[in-house]
This record gives sequence, C-alpha cells and structure tokens, in this order.
Amino acid sequence: MALARSGIELRCQCIETHSKFIHPKFIQNVNLTPSGPHCKNVEVIATLKDGREVCLDPTAPWVKLIIKAILDK
Amino acid sequence: MALARSGIELRCQCIETHSKFIHPKFIQNVNLTPSGPHCKNVEVIATLKDGREVCLDPTAPWVKLIIKAILDK
Repeated sequence: MALARSGIELRCQCIETHSKFIHPKFIQNVNLTPSGPHCKNVEVIATLKDGREVCLDPTAPWVKLIIKAILDK
Repeated sequence: MALARSGIELRCQCIETHSKFIHPKFIQNVNLTPSGPHCKNVEVIATLKDGREVCLDPTAPWVKLIIKAILDK
C-alpha cells in the first residue's frame, strides 16, 4: 500500500509503445519515468482525455516534439 | 470518484514552483500537464525519490534540460 500511494513502481510499466502520432489535443498529461533499477527503459506514458493510458517511444521524434510543444505552450 | 480514478483534475495543481535546481538522480518521475480549461498554466510536477511532489517552472531552462536528459538517456 505504501508503494502504491507513493507512486513507486517496481518494474517496467510499458510492454510496447504506441507507434502512431497522437495529436496533443487528445493528451491529458504525460508522465516521464527515467530508467533505474526498477526498469532499464525510459518510460513515457500519456494519459489521453478519454482516460486511456498509452506508452510512447521516448526516442520517437514526434514524442519529443509533443513534449516540447507542451512545455513551450 | 470517477474523476479521482481517471486522474483528471479540475483546477491548477501548482500554487508556486520550486526555483532551485534539482538533480535528475533525485527524480522518480515527471508529470507534464498541458494548459486547458481546468488550468491556464502548463504544469510540471516532479515526484522525488523520497516521495515528495514538487512543482517545476516549465519555462526554466534547467527544467527543460532535465526533461531532455530523461528522454535522451
């Protein structure tokens, strides 16, 4: 319970990543988790406005652009 | 309850932002929320490894650099 409350996950959350472009207007928020002992991959999880959670590829240029767009807006 | 479960907040989450540099090694994850009807500000909330949540300024160069570093790692 303590782990769940503090949001710390003990393993990778993403099995695969969504390859198609998602327009920022559909994105509610984006969560970035650095790699670490729990998971060797950087994980980028977008929560969409319809409630779905989608793993994105942190190396995809469109993913970097969306994150930049959110920050620069 | 439905709102709490789907992670949709109806107002701004950050009252103020942390101005001092935080080393990425202390960061568990970073959540980016675009501006929208719920809040006019872009919100960047870092969860630290000790469980604390800290609001960061999305316009601060060091914040952009940390996010870039997470993605490029």
